[in-house]
Amino acid sequence: MPTTFSIRRRVEFSETDMAGIVHFSNFFRYMEYAEHAFFRSLGFSIHTQTTDPPVGWPRVHVDCDFKKPLRFEDEIEIVLTVTEKRSRSLRFEFRFLKVKGEEREEVAIGNMVTVCVARNEAGGMQACPIPAEIASRIEAGDAS
Amino acid sequence: MPTTFSIRRRVEFSETDMAGIVHFSNFFRYMEYAEHAFFRSLGFSIHTQTTDPPVGWPRVHVDCDFKKPLRFEDEIEIVLTVTEKRSRSLRFEFRFLKVKGEEREEVAIGNMVTVCVARNEAGGMQACPIPAEIASRIEAGDAS
Amino acid sequence: MPTTFSIRRRVEFSETDMAGIVHFSNFFRYMEYAEHAFFRSLGFSIHTQTTDPPVGWPRVHVDCDFKKPLRFEDEIEIVLTVTEKRSRSLRFEFRFLKVKGEEREEVAIGNMVTVCVARNEAGGMQACPIPAEIASRIEAGDAS
Amino acid sequence: MPTTFSIRRRVEFSETDMAGIVHFSNFFRYMEYAEHAFFRSLGFSIHTQTTDPPVGWPRVHVDCDFKKPLRFEDEIEIVLTVTEKRSRSLRFEFRFLKVKGEEREEVAIGNMVTVCVARNEAGGMQACPIPAEIASRIEAGDAS
Repeated sequence: MPTTFSIRRRVEFSETDMAGIVHFSNFFRYMEYAEHAFFRSLGFSIHTQTTDPPVGWPRVHVDCDFKKPLRFEDEIEIVLTVTEKRSRSLRFEFRFLKVKGEEREEVAIGNMVTVCVARNEAGGMQACPIPAEIASRIEAGDAS
Repeated sequence: MPTTFSIRRRVEFSETDMAGIVHFSNFFRYMEYAEHAFFRSLGFSIHTQTTDPPVGWPRVHVDCDFKKPLRFEDEIEIVLTVTEKRSRSLRFEFRFLKVKGEEREEVAIGNMVTVCVARNEAGGMQACPIPAEIASRIEAGDAS
Repeated sequence: MPTTFSIRRRVEFSETDMAGIVHFSNFFRYMEYAEHAFFRSLGFSIHTQTTDPPVGWPRVHVDCDFKKPLRFEDEIEIVLTVTEKRSRSLRFEFRFLKVKGEEREEVAIGNMVTVCVARNEAGGMQACPIPAEIASRIEAGDAS
Repeated sequence: MPTTFSIRRRVEFSETDMAGIVHFSNFFRYMEYAEHAFFRSLGFSIHTQTTDPPVGWPRVHVDCDFKKPLRFEDEIEIVLTVTEKRSRSLRFEFRFLKVKGEEREEVAIGNMVTVCVARNEAGGMQACPIPAEIASRIEAGDAS
């Protein structure tokens, strides 16, 4: 079973644009919001690492398909699924669901690939194996 | 020859994040910035349409691959290429080049698919043919 | 007793800048976030008005004094106080408190003046009296 | 004569909100945009300091009064004036002018106070005198 995580959020006014809908760039902020909450749910802050070595997670790829617009004060549920776990990278799928009482309407779906990096001796960032204490808590699988 | 367009921009402080680099969501704002300047270069504002009917261009897909980070005050050149022209949609490729004197370093590459829509009788938005005065000025082709 | 309202929020990564702290412009988004939640707490959405006439609330003044920085994942409490209620405008004070267990540290304090407007016959926006159903639920007073 | 500096900018789509106008928080990004270009005009990058010691400029106060809305693709001129120069701080006034051919319409006016800081021996940031090579190039005076 792939690791999944979900979190809710309400659309803020400053996230809308003059078309009256959420500006498409904000879906990527929402992805990051879910990703960071997911890491916290595992006991890690994505940027105050307690792992040895301390690691970072730059993105190397993101994409998103937009099906329906989101509007001010819409409540959304973001469902993160780990769809690939490699030694040095993770792939997440994000489904954006508009909450309508008990129902959910999928409004967008996207993906993000992040690489685990640590500082090398020269001071630069370099891909490194995902620390065992993180990797052991994540299982990848096909998204539904 | 596919239609291409390029524009420059300097990275602003508010576009960086605590990792010291441009937040990845801003690459999508940069794409839009180039897209809108491209439409202006054709004589159209993307949102004050003089076409009949007035049309809008919601995005249905975007993606981006990140190769190198951008930093505060970096000068970038964004090269837009029309890679697909269908009756009701356009596909753009965006190459992000860091300007280093006469040289250019590709730091990211992305794509956007937009659909031409007009308001239907019920007041909703519906895909419609790209107005001839716009379509005639765009030629699609493989990106380099 | 002046009307007060408070709400919490966690600093998101995309709200930081390369100085490692929350970009100062985001304190104004936080103000708006608290303002809109305050209106919802009164039973009104600030933009889906059920009042007659429907009203909007453009800002005419905002200010903020910054005392301490906020960082990624800091939990903050935003305390809104209505400090002035006039027939056509409201003044809010916002105190930004960093949550440290049971303690609170004030990191910033700001103000916002909003004017109640409705659409006039010519289609423009014009200041108008705050609808009674809103005004009656707000009491102004000196902020602490 | 107070030091002044002006720069132009075109309103971007992502800077608008569902009210169809520039979101008020973006006026502060515009202030910063002008401030940083002003520093570059003096030969300094605000964040890649060549001064000794290297200094930073956190804001301690900002305010803005909004008179008229700005809309997508409006061209604006931002006029920065140094209204106060103290040993460790600067105060800027920013006038936002909408460009209409040869005419200018003032749409907003704001202020920013920044403090010159350097890293102290304990690693923290502390107010310090403005380096002479910067201070000598700035003259303060009353804004018009």
